[in-house]
Amino acid sequence: MAHFLTLTPNPAIDVTYRVDEQLVGETVRVREVTRRAGGKGVNVARVLAALGRPTATVAPLDARAAEAMRRELAAEGVTLHALVVAGPTRSTVAVVDDVSHPTLLAEPGAPFDADEWADLCRTLGAHVGARDTVAVAGSFPPGTPASAVADVVETVRSRRGRVLVDTSGPLLIAAADAGAHIVKANAAEAREATGLGDLADAAARLARGGALVVVSLGADGALLREPAGTMHRHPAVPGVSGNPTGAGDAATAGLLAALSEGLPPATALAWAAVVGAAAVSHPLAGAVDPDVVLTLAARIGLDARDLLSPRTPVRSTP
Amino acid sequence: MAHFLTLTPNPAIDVTYRVDEQLVGETVRVREVTRRAGGKGVNVARVLAALGRPTATVAPLDARAAEAMRRELAAEGVTLHALVVAGPTRSTVAVVDDVSHPTLLAEPGAPFDADEWADLCRTLGAHVGARDTVAVAGSFPPGTPASAVADVVETVRSRRGRVLVDTSGPLLIAAADAGAHIVKANAAEAREATGLGDLADAAARLARGGALVVVSLGADGALLREPAGTMHRHPAVPGVSGNPTGAGDAATAGLLAALSEGLPPATALAWAAVVGAAAVSHPLAGAVDPDVVLTLAARIGLDARDLLSPRTPVRSTP
Repeated sequence: MAHFLTLTPNPAIDVTYRVDEQLVGETVRVREVTRRAGGKGVNVARVLAALGRPTATVAPLDARAAEAMRRELAAEGVTLHALVVAGPTRSTVAVVDDVSHPTLLAEPGAPFDADEWADLCRTLGAHVGARDTVAVAGSFPPGTPASAVADVVETVRSRRGRVLVDTSGPLLIAAADAGAHIVKANAAEAREATGLGDLADAAARLARGGALVVVSLGADGALLREPAGTMHRHPAVPGVSGNPTGAGDAATAGLLAALSEGLPPATALAWAAVVGAAAVSHPLAGAVDPDVVLTLAARIGLDARDLLSPRTPVRSTP
Repeated sequence: MAHFLTLTPNPAIDVTYRVDEQLVGETVRVREVTRRAGGKGVNVARVLAALGRPTATVAPLDARAAEAMRRELAAEGVTLHALVVAGPTRSTVAVVDDVSHPTLLAEPGAPFDADEWADLCRTLGAHVGARDTVAVAGSFPPGTPASAVADVVETVRSRRGRVLVDTSGPLLIAAADAGAHIVKANAAEAREATGLGDLADAAARLARGGALVVVSLGADGALLREPAGTMHRHPAVPGVSGNPTGAGDAATAGLLAALSEGLPPATALAWAAVVGAAAVSHPLAGAVDPDVVLTLAARIGLDARDLLSPRTPVRSTP
């Protein structure tokens, strides 16, 4: 079985504030505070582990966050390789009540210097082997140059690993042009990064470096463009409602698990929809229950044994 | 000169999130994050230091917060005596934009066990000498029993110090009944703690243990009830506008500095108004500029030399 690794360039402590009612301009007592390791790469790793794939995650963290996240992630089957940086590690604060949608207050994170980028690529490189799959997911620290993202892609490629990048803006283009094997974005991000309104055009632009491109459409499913240009579309799994936060990361995990099993891209896209939907139906953001994955897979006619009883890959990921 | 000490039973890291616009139910990018030592006792200590009074502050803090606050407060002339606890030290998050009033998200803090209360009283007791003035200000950790507050008051009294308590709810009553020398609350807190709608009645209830009672009325000034029953009222200083956050703590500092100089209670109440108004006019919450204190004192006919050129107290604080 291929080894899975994720990189979260700008991890966060996901803080949830439960309040009686969200009010602007008032003092609001926080009734309950929960803290959880966060960042898209961390969430992808969690779902891969839930799908039975041993996964490690690399993240730059301050010493305190590194210690707390290492303990927390180990309990979820994810090995943390932290690069300890000055930080402080940012928080993203979700304010929730029973009245409105949650409000997410997202701190930008601390910028990196060139030394820290070199250290991060070294830490990543130390854990990547041939045919490993690496998911680089989430925002990058403020001020990250395109060259740093290209270095991350090259770190994986030079070790003959496969790399997916899920980010936004100019750095998404940088990753695609540097030769990322898979590029993933949502529709708004794909349009914004390429400046192209038509999603087929945007996907073609993101494929210019040879990538397989996935564009998620939220409740409308997702598009996949194979490197040779064939397009696939898969609708969202019907009859699922809940919390969409983190569903995109679960979909990434489903996609990568399926591709690493040698399933064709169109089937991998269906698995992405199933695992994403399982996350929507789970009370905890971005978590999945393998039994729910089984049920939803059956609903759309997928053979669950393809994904949930991993076998040696019959061909490599794109 | 008397020695000043403050106790912040439930300190916080005051976090400010600057955003473009406060929106409920959306993802809001935080443009700028600032962190500052917080808690009412910490703020009282800062203003006492700004008024030229060497001040120390006692606070239970986790190791990381203790280190950061020690450095920060030392630069402002305040000595931190931290009791290192498991924590984590809570945050209060102020979300600010140029559109609405700030929203304050106040975490409750971690509860204490009996050992931690005993440790905190020991830490406090180690720094209190005869005739020292101790301000205990702000909320207490969730679940604090009345006996713990009585122990804090007794810790100061048994060392022949003077103790002011500024808090709310049943613990305000507990402090008053345990013999705090000064009890301070705002009008809503005084009414809520005593269950009495008339502020003179509420002040009388809070004076039952022998305290001098101060009730702040916000923009309407403040009331002071001497232990023997004489009432004084002082209006807010006219012509001052700005940020009222932390003005109550500045007023507490002005009151204590004046009382420790031997000024009569009515004059101390006027100083409280002046120093509170200086905080309102300062761009940073709860900070004061001594030059502004001078100007505002002159505006209401106070002799600034009484407060800003400290001399040996001619009589003790109440």
